[in-house]
Amino acid sequence: MRDVKICIIGAGSAVFSLDLVRDLCLTKSLWGSTVSFMDIDEQRLNAVYNLAKRYANEMKANFRFKKATKREEGLQDADFVIDTALVGGHKIQEEQREIAEKHGYYRGIGDVVSDYYSDLGSYHQLKFFTDLTREMEEKCPDAWLLQTSNPVFEGCNLITRETKIKVIGLCDGFDLGCGVLIDTLKLAKEEVLIEAPGFNHMIWMTKFHYKGENAYPLLDEWIAKSAEEYWKENRNYYLPADMSPAAVDMYRIFGLLPIADTARVGNWWYHTDLETKKNWYGSTGGDDSEVVWPLYLKFLENQLDNLMEVANNPSASVTENFPPAKSIQQHISIIDALVNDNRGRFQVNVPNKNGISEIPSDVVIETPALVSKKGIEPLFKGKLPKGIMVGAMIPRMLRMELVLEAFLTGDRELLLQLILNDRRTKSLEQAKALLKDILKLPFNRSMMEHYK
Amino acid sequence: MRDVKICIIGAGSAVFSLDLVRDLCLTKSLWGSTVSFMDIDEQRLNAVYNLAKRYANEMKANFRFKKATKREEGLQDADFVIDTALVGGHKIQEEQREIAEKHGYYRGIGDVVSDYYSDLGSYHQLKFFTDLTREMEEKCPDAWLLQTSNPVFEGCNLITRETKIKVIGLCDGFDLGCGVLIDTLKLAKEEVLIEAPGFNHMIWMTKFHYKGENAYPLLDEWIAKSAEEYWKENRNYYLPADMSPAAVDMYRIFGLLPIADTARVGNWWYHTDLETKKNWYGSTGGDDSEVVWPLYLKFLENQLDNLMEVANNPSASVTENFPPAKSIQQHISIIDALVNDNRGRFQVNVPNKNGISEIPSDVVIETPALVSKKGIEPLFKGKLPKGIMVGAMIPRMLRMELVLEAFLTGDRELLLQLILNDRRTKSLEQAKALLKDILKLPFNRSMMEHYK
Repeated sequence: MRDVKICIIGAGSAVFSLDLVRDLCLTKSLWGSTVSFMDIDEQRLNAVYNLAKRYANEMKANFRFKKATKREEGLQDADFVIDTALVGGHKIQEEQREIAEKHGYYRGIGDVVSDYYSDLGSYHQLKFFTDLTREMEEKCPDAWLLQTSNPVFEGCNLITRETKIKVIGLCDGFDLGCGVLIDTLKLAKEEVLIEAPGFNHMIWMTKFHYKGENAYPLLDEWIAKSAEEYWKENRNYYLPADMSPAAVDMYRIFGLLPIADTARVGNWWYHTDLETKKNWYGSTGGDDSEVVWPLYLKFLENQLDNLMEVANNPSASVTENFPPAKSIQQHISIIDALVNDNRGRFQVNVPNKNGISEIPSDVVIETPALVSKKGIEPLFKGKLPKGIMVGAMIPRMLRMELVLEAFLTGDRELLLQLILNDRRTKSLEQAKALLKDILKLPFNRSMMEHYK
Repeated sequence: MRDVKICIIGAGSAVFSLDLVRDLCLTKSLWGSTVSFMDIDEQRLNAVYNLAKRYANEMKANFRFKKATKREEGLQDADFVIDTALVGGHKIQEEQREIAEKHGYYRGIGDVVSDYYSDLGSYHQLKFFTDLTREMEEKCPDAWLLQTSNPVFEGCNLITRETKIKVIGLCDGFDLGCGVLIDTLKLAKEEVLIEAPGFNHMIWMTKFHYKGENAYPLLDEWIAKSAEEYWKENRNYYLPADMSPAAVDMYRIFGLLPIADTARVGNWWYHTDLETKKNWYGSTGGDDSEVVWPLYLKFLENQLDNLMEVANNPSASVTENFPPAKSIQQHISIIDALVNDNRGRFQVNVPNKNGISEIPSDVVIETPALVSKKGIEPLFKGKLPKGIMVGAMIPRMLRMELVLEAFLTGDRELLLQLILNDRRTKSLEQAKALLKDILKLPFNRSMMEHYK
């Protein structure tokens, strides 16, 4: 077996790292590989390293694990780099959200609350992607980068345009979304074929087959007969955005069902205040409301605490606490397909070439693809409905272009334009005041210097 | 001399029609032509017909004038059709503005007040363009249509895509705007060369030569040294949008000077209320403010009254009241160029082909062009700055696409999207309520039926 070198950047995302370790242990064709964990948080890095070693031992799987707080060590000669790093963690987002709330921006910075996973203009993330890929060009120029942290759309476009690194953007949204749809319609998963191309967090179900037949009529029937009841039952508990009134409304407007984050992001008028959000996403206001989001952050903390507890207890069985079952992440299967030709169909973010009509060939799209030793073969080729292009896809592409142009030129004016394009902005003065306060934050000092 | 047949649709736009007659009388190479006036307003039609005949007599120019209240008569075998018709006149726009104001839309319907010259989704105008060009396909399939009434951008795209009629969109904005710039900088007009491609009402000065040299430094000097004073002097009188603080601000943001209506439309945040408009367009708030717009409508009325007075007084000299000097309109010179090869450089709206990079080839752009017996040869070929494409051109193109898609599909949902895309819309309910009230208007009955 070949010694495949996998480097995980931001390995302190401990739950995600353990998912990867679990998937590796369940993929015998990759046994013998070297896995380098890298994180600047030494405590979490040590915990992940410790858990990974014990997990492999318990599974009798053979891997070489390494750890590093310096990126260059992990990158040297890597075949695959998995980037999951979120610079500053959720903390800096929350701090900026608070400031934006003071300036009259409900739920804080970002054009549409739920499509926003980092800082203003994604500066810190894009800076990190730039530094990482520059270093990859030196240490492992032929490695594949599996880009996992957000913004995947902006990030993959930046990397494909500005560097020589081969990048695949990966998101679990498609699988999660399809899961909710399949469960809700009570279908047998193995009989379902779903195709949903678009941009990351903006994908549309162009094909929905069940037992070889078009299954959109089953969805239509569910909407007509069962949706109201489903919403009533779930609204006080947890209503996934995937099958929310927002998703059904977008399907009505655009003609194709939006999958996963597509509905969560949705139209601006679903998000104007908590009362409105409740109408569209259930009584909690949806995943990103002021009700659910703090609970989600707390949940992440608890997950991490559990993991640290196991890490700190050498006598505990790791596999008992985290039973060996394949995770929803595609990373290890994709590596297996590229290395060992164990080919499969995946949902990936790669340059469009001539996949979606009227999207420039260099723009990164999300598309189903066949992955094998030959590489990535995107499977979608065709048009999206005009309403989707004009009302959703091209405006989203323009936002990406503006974010990248602001970052690449370091033009503060363009950063201001991003705020001015935000529906919640009511005046130039308000936008300027927000920008000023955001740039004044201590952790934004390099950002302040970057944008002249 | 060849008998050229020119048909003027909406000839009751009496001042404009008289401009054309004046230009014809001053263009000897077109003497002998037949000019058919068409309008549904018989009184104004008769006045124009009467004035035209007298004007030609006084000028000893030889033309055959005809008049018709039925379109098909004027169109039969026409070589040129000049369309200046505004369905319902300004009245229906004002009525809809009032309703929209009640729904919380400052200055009424339309995405950006000053870019809005007709009704919601431009229904009545687009319907008129469709009917007119269908009739042209029967009566004069080889005629050129010189499309003058707004929306020129949406209209020309509709016509080139949906019919076989050769259309040229014409607007006096470019010449007026250049005039203001040249006067303000105190340049000798004949030494100036300006190139300003884009879309109608969104054009950018890509070239500014004075005596063969780049003249942008002269503009920069004026901004640095004279602009403040100029604004102070003009703000209580009349400050043209072309050299307003808004125009200079857009130049600062986008890197090229916006010409004419480009600055008048400007950024949404220039238009939020009268106080804000005053900051950007002088103390009257600019051409489309609640201060100036009613005065403009009154001015049009007075102009018409004067004209009717001369028409009703057979002993008055028409040429004394309207001295024979070439107007700013390009129509007659373009006809002369196409018919008699008296070639010239004009500002026209025609399909892009490969003029502006990254704009689809079938989208109509505004561009300088050489016009001769061979036809229209667009002269601009190149890129616009990325900030202009992302921040202005492509969003404007998307709005056009949405307007046309709404019109062509008759999908009421898309009409609602147009309102929802309006920055002033605060909620879905507000947008729905406005749409409902607009469709209820008696003159919108056919519109109500069109949009299901």
